[in-house]
Amino acid sequence: MKIDGDRLREDIEANAEFGALDVEGHGRTVLTGTDANRKAREYFVERLEDAGLDVRVDSVGNIAGRWTPESADPESKPVAAGSHLDSVPEGGIFDGPLGVYAALEAVRAMQDAEIEPSRPIDVVSFTEEEGQRFADGLLGSSVAVGERSVEEALELRDGRTTLADALDTMDFDGEGRIDASEWDSWLELHVEQSRRLERADCPVGVVTTITGITHCAVEVLGEANHAGATPMPERTDALVAASEFVRDVEDGANEVGETTVGTVGKLDVRPNATNVVPGAVEMGVDIRDVSYDAMNELVSLARDSLSRLESERGVETTFSREFDLEPTEMSARCRRALHEAGDEANIELLDMHSGAAHDTMHVGDVTDAAMLFARSRDGISHNPAEWTEWGDCAAATRVLAGALTSLAR
Amino acid sequence: MKIDGDRLREDIEANAEFGALDVEGHGRTVLTGTDANRKAREYFVERLEDAGLDVRVDSVGNIAGRWTPESADPESKPVAAGSHLDSVPEGGIFDGPLGVYAALEAVRAMQDAEIEPSRPIDVVSFTEEEGQRFADGLLGSSVAVGERSVEEALELRDGRTTLADALDTMDFDGEGRIDASEWDSWLELHVEQSRRLERADCPVGVVTTITGITHCAVEVLGEANHAGATPMPERTDALVAASEFVRDVEDGANEVGETTVGTVGKLDVRPNATNVVPGAVEMGVDIRDVSYDAMNELVSLARDSLSRLESERGVETTFSREFDLEPTEMSARCRRALHEAGDEANIELLDMHSGAAHDTMHVGDVTDAAMLFARSRDGISHNPAEWTEWGDCAAATRVLAGALTSLAR
Repeated sequence: MKIDGDRLREDIEANAEFGALDVEGHGRTVLTGTDANRKAREYFVERLEDAGLDVRVDSVGNIAGRWTPESADPESKPVAAGSHLDSVPEGGIFDGPLGVYAALEAVRAMQDAEIEPSRPIDVVSFTEEEGQRFADGLLGSSVAVGERSVEEALELRDGRTTLADALDTMDFDGEGRIDASEWDSWLELHVEQSRRLERADCPVGVVTTITGITHCAVEVLGEANHAGATPMPERTDALVAASEFVRDVEDGANEVGETTVGTVGKLDVRPNATNVVPGAVEMGVDIRDVSYDAMNELVSLARDSLSRLESERGVETTFSREFDLEPTEMSARCRRALHEAGDEANIELLDMHSGAAHDTMHVGDVTDAAMLFARSRDGISHNPAEWTEWGDCAAATRVLAGALTSLAR
Repeated sequence: MKIDGDRLREDIEANAEFGALDVEGHGRTVLTGTDANRKAREYFVERLEDAGLDVRVDSVGNIAGRWTPESADPESKPVAAGSHLDSVPEGGIFDGPLGVYAALEAVRAMQDAEIEPSRPIDVVSFTEEEGQRFADGLLGSSVAVGERSVEEALELRDGRTTLADALDTMDFDGEGRIDASEWDSWLELHVEQSRRLERADCPVGVVTTITGITHCAVEVLGEANHAGATPMPERTDALVAASEFVRDVEDGANEVGETTVGTVGKLDVRPNATNVVPGAVEMGVDIRDVSYDAMNELVSLARDSLSRLESERGVETTFSREFDLEPTEMSARCRRALHEAGDEANIELLDMHSGAAHDTMHVGDVTDAAMLFARSRDGISHNPAEWTEWGDCAAATRVLAGALTSLAR
């Protein structure tokens, strides 16, 4: 089976025009409900229809194009593949669109090769994976797996705009709910967003597990005071205490395990004036691992750090675990299909975990699911410098097409 | 000589109504050019005139009321005293107004006691000591000592409003320049803003030196990256590096000397999202001491910390010393006058330095100047919880009146 790398590239480049930025690299900003998002969706629907797929848009704007060839039983569970078309602000052109258009290209390649699957194939784009406006992320897939109801989702707000308003503006407010549990299996191709494939000189990765994620909100309360008139021994400086916590999270992540990561990504000081001893600090902590036990261990080390700071520095602290997703293991059957496709096409594959969250975390809760990664230059993502070579895009799409063929056989 | 503590209290309480806040404690917000500031100024002028003083408002809104009794040579250099009427947002009612109305009460007490000074006495309120709108602070006094020209000052902006606009709005755009170098000497009474008097069980302090102040702007540049997909060893986390710097500033201040203080009061993270490894951190550092050498030593330790972080953590850093005032020693003659007044009134005085900046730093550059402090409850200032007992206000005013009497003798 032959992938048409140029056809894939044309689609990704056409999609890159929507919300394109006039900056160095290849940047775009495509937020739900914007003109750029509407155009990207319209182009996608057009390309699905060009390939003879039946398009469905559901109530939360998820889009699926179904290919039901004569060989397939229309009543059998379809095999699905896809990703998302939205981006972070000033994001790259592959993160999301590669998985969407690779799925479409895989179907076109199967059509060209006159492959006769016995199951229909769905090419899918989920609404707002990046979580920039209406939710924390993985919005469309949360509805597709029934974790969040359509009604709840439509009422999510960005300021005064609801998701319902945003979909209506784009004319992408469809009907019903695309239900991922009705799929036989699911594959998502995505850019890697780290450097392991590059280092291993390997174009394509097969994800074994998507790490779990915990987000914790931490507050450190000291006493705001005059920076000149308050001698050092009389201070309860919330920022000095918080600084020890930041270091402790790093030390803890290094200590717990090789796959553990811990990040204090957000830190806000009050009152935040050069001449005032900081009175309070709020932090957001991100903890991930392929092992949920390891995640819990780091959470526990972070709490220990706060207890120590309370007794040693006289601050008060609060800690809450606001968001928690356990690690998601990928389906063995789907991973095997990917490895067989790699062998068949003579493309080297590397097993690896995903540190980033993806819609596949949700889909994996209701059906057999797996992911494959295409090598990213320097591991950069969420940035106009994000880049994946066209050859790697085609190689990963070839593996995807092979796996879809075998899953839909 | 007898101070009328009730008359002083009535003035401070009347002034506290302008910009009063409906919060616990006694709060006010009086920013230059606001209605609250206009009312506070108008009331002050009225009270100066009630006491028979000749009022002058200069081009930058500094106000002085001159008492020229028959005993005084109108051509001799006046002795001056005062402070400021503006506040920080949500500040207290004594910080500034105590010094202004204590100076007026001292004059009234001298009048009541039929004291016959040979020099005129000026009661002064400087424009915008707190630096909340148009400059970093000490605005009016910077013009009064010629450090900043009237023209420069009037062009200072808060958004689209110039100082000239703000003064015009209040009808406090006067003429010429009140020139502090024409004063024989200057005294400022202020609330202490720390706990030394309270601890020593002493109502009034005599300032020996006002510490110098250095403000440094520090930037730490790392690499923003995906908090999930970037393994710990591959990060250049700007916030972890900045956290070590915060600790190093604290350690350095403790190491350099007992009177040294070092504060990272301001810290901003970019992009400041829980799931992104911090790419950049900007900090504002405040360094003070009564010894300029000690200040320089701490600046040097802070720079060493950044060099170490560059080599150990791979971040890039920038450092600039944006604001620098050397320590100001108080005049021996003025301090002696204060101590003699304390002895005479049987009020215990404690020698101490000021960690906070005051207009007296400027005035001390052009004439003999000194400060006295009234005890502050818990050392709290810039806060509606700021409080000085009325008895302490009166005691400090008694010392001020005695010292003015001897300086103007």
